[in-house]
Amino acid sequence: MRTIDWWDGAVRIIDQTRLPQAEIFIDVRDVDELVVHIQSLAVRGAMALGVAGALGMALAATTAARAGDDVDRALDVAAEKLSNARPTAVNLGYGVRAVQRARAEGADVAGVLAAALAIRDEDILANRAIGEAGAAFLHGARRILTHCNAGALAGVEEGTALGVIGHLHRESPLTVVYVCETRPLLQGSRLTAWELSRAGIPHRVIVDSAAAGLILSGEVEAVVVGADRIAANGDVANKVGTVSHALAAHHAGIPFLVAAPESTIDDLTPTGADIPIELRHEDEVLDVLGQRVASPDSRALNPAFDITPAGLVTAIVTQRRLLRDPARNPPRPIANTDAR
Amino acid sequence: MRTIDWWDGAVRIIDQTRLPQAEIFIDVRDVDELVVHIQSLAVRGAMALGVAGALGMALAATTAARAGDDVDRALDVAAEKLSNARPTAVNLGYGVRAVQRARAEGADVAGVLAAALAIRDEDILANRAIGEAGAAFLHGARRILTHCNAGALAGVEEGTALGVIGHLHRESPLTVVYVCETRPLLQGSRLTAWELSRAGIPHRVIVDSAAAGLILSGEVEAVVVGADRIAANGDVANKVGTVSHALAAHHAGIPFLVAAPESTIDDLTPTGADIPIELRHEDEVLDVLGQRVASPDSRALNPAFDITPAGLVTAIVTQRRLLRDPARNPPRPIANTDAR
Repeated sequence: MRTIDWWDGAVRIIDQTRLPQAEIFIDVRDVDELVVHIQSLAVRGAMALGVAGALGMALAATTAARAGDDVDRALDVAAEKLSNARPTAVNLGYGVRAVQRARAEGADVAGVLAAALAIRDEDILANRAIGEAGAAFLHGARRILTHCNAGALAGVEEGTALGVIGHLHRESPLTVVYVCETRPLLQGSRLTAWELSRAGIPHRVIVDSAAAGLILSGEVEAVVVGADRIAANGDVANKVGTVSHALAAHHAGIPFLVAAPESTIDDLTPTGADIPIELRHEDEVLDVLGQRVASPDSRALNPAFDITPAGLVTAIVTQRRLLRDPARNPPRPIANTDAR
Repeated sequence: MRTIDWWDGAVRIIDQTRLPQAEIFIDVRDVDELVVHIQSLAVRGAMALGVAGALGMALAATTAARAGDDVDRALDVAAEKLSNARPTAVNLGYGVRAVQRARAEGADVAGVLAAALAIRDEDILANRAIGEAGAAFLHGARRILTHCNAGALAGVEEGTALGVIGHLHRESPLTVVYVCETRPLLQGSRLTAWELSRAGIPHRVIVDSAAAGLILSGEVEAVVVGADRIAANGDVANKVGTVSHALAAHHAGIPFLVAAPESTIDDLTPTGADIPIELRHEDEVLDVLGQRVASPDSRALNPAFDITPAGLVTAIVTQRRLLRDPARNPPRPIANTDAR
């Protein structure tokens, strides 16, 4: 299964807002419609959004050509709409720019599509490389804990943290993957558990706060998570809750592995303290499934991310390298290019 | 407000299953009815259950006397029913036995009631003493984090951890109390937030996994929690999630205070490893408000408690003493009596 792909002249996505209750694929044939699906989180996750940006550009070019419209004008309009669909998702712009470069270098409509498909394939290969390298690093671990969804649903085919888990499982069957449910939006129990079920990997969903006790009791051999941004000093921003697992792993002396593409490393951000933490709507905490559970007069604080200090990270694995002990070996970018 | 009290010949309880949506008091005039409310968790929490056991015995004696029935026979029947209402709640039996002792020593029906009310008053005084001593220990802290509900709803009038918070606030207004929502049953957002609202104490509900990030960022000055059992070596069993807050507090160098009555210290349990961890039903994790959220084929692991090693505990406060650094000063019980 691919989370996002090019199929019969359309962008085919799985509707993540309906998972895990229903597996519905949508064939998107219009850029405006794709923007709506990006904003509703039907397609989400940094790498998948990069591919959505690229395939959205291909959609604009092929549609315009079929209708006899001006392809360059259609590409300009699509670039504007796609890049701004979610302002904080830098990868959307990455996919858009890659297609724009191909067009500027003289690609025809078929060449534009080829450039977009290359972004998709690059994402698949990067995830595969991350999965392999991460599994080699955690070789032998059979009881793994993960948080949120850094799986195929955040990429195209394999995902980062779940790519590592999938490779480990194919090497030799895992005993158990502990899936933190990931309040408030439950991406762990909704999406990661669904991916592991499909892959036939044994797993148990736990409340996020059960992780530390399980880790300290010796039940867990390694923790692997994704990342939303990695500062130049190796501090890692990821879904809220990540740092509590890092603290427990550190205390228990088990590996804490961050699996992410090179594009996540942000050399313009010196440390984790410089990463702004998005505060999301209070109702995500106070309500559950649209129903108020908290005391009526109470307010919430809802940070979407937290910062794991580099000193708590055992290693960072990307598609190109394994950075052990990032506190001592800060992950300076390989090159100052737009490439990931 | 009292969570449980004796009122006009009845046991008056607030129905905790209806909180925070509705504040409903129930006047219970029959032991069988009281047992039903204990089993449905309308009344819950170790200390409140001790009082429920005692007042239930008083109810049996006064009802029998009014009807002209045999008071001793009624007390025997009630003792059996109340002690077994929740097999793991040792405090139920404590309240029952205290009343039985009074009767054995010659108390009439009025004396039986007086013995039961003495248990209630003892609970109130113990909580007040814990609150005062804990607040003295945390003197000056204005940004506090707590987990689950160790409040009046688990006692009679003040609670343990929330008793400490209430005393701190009366001393000088707190800036904020961070209330961990406490998945899976949300006692934090449902009960603790409600208690803090009533007390006019500023607070913010957070998802449990947001605690570590807030603590490491310097947002929190102290953590205070209750306890379900404290081993002879100072290891603390409390609601799942407690140890992750202890790890973060340790890393950040802020106090982690455990507030609990003497009866919580269990000298028959050498270490935390000897405390059995109750595994509750998987549906508490997989469903939310009775609706399935997790992937349909997925299973859960649902430990209700975790163990915080004594080395992560800054101090334990009871109604009689403050135990600093329990890893070096294990909390041997003061006396081998039934008293708390």
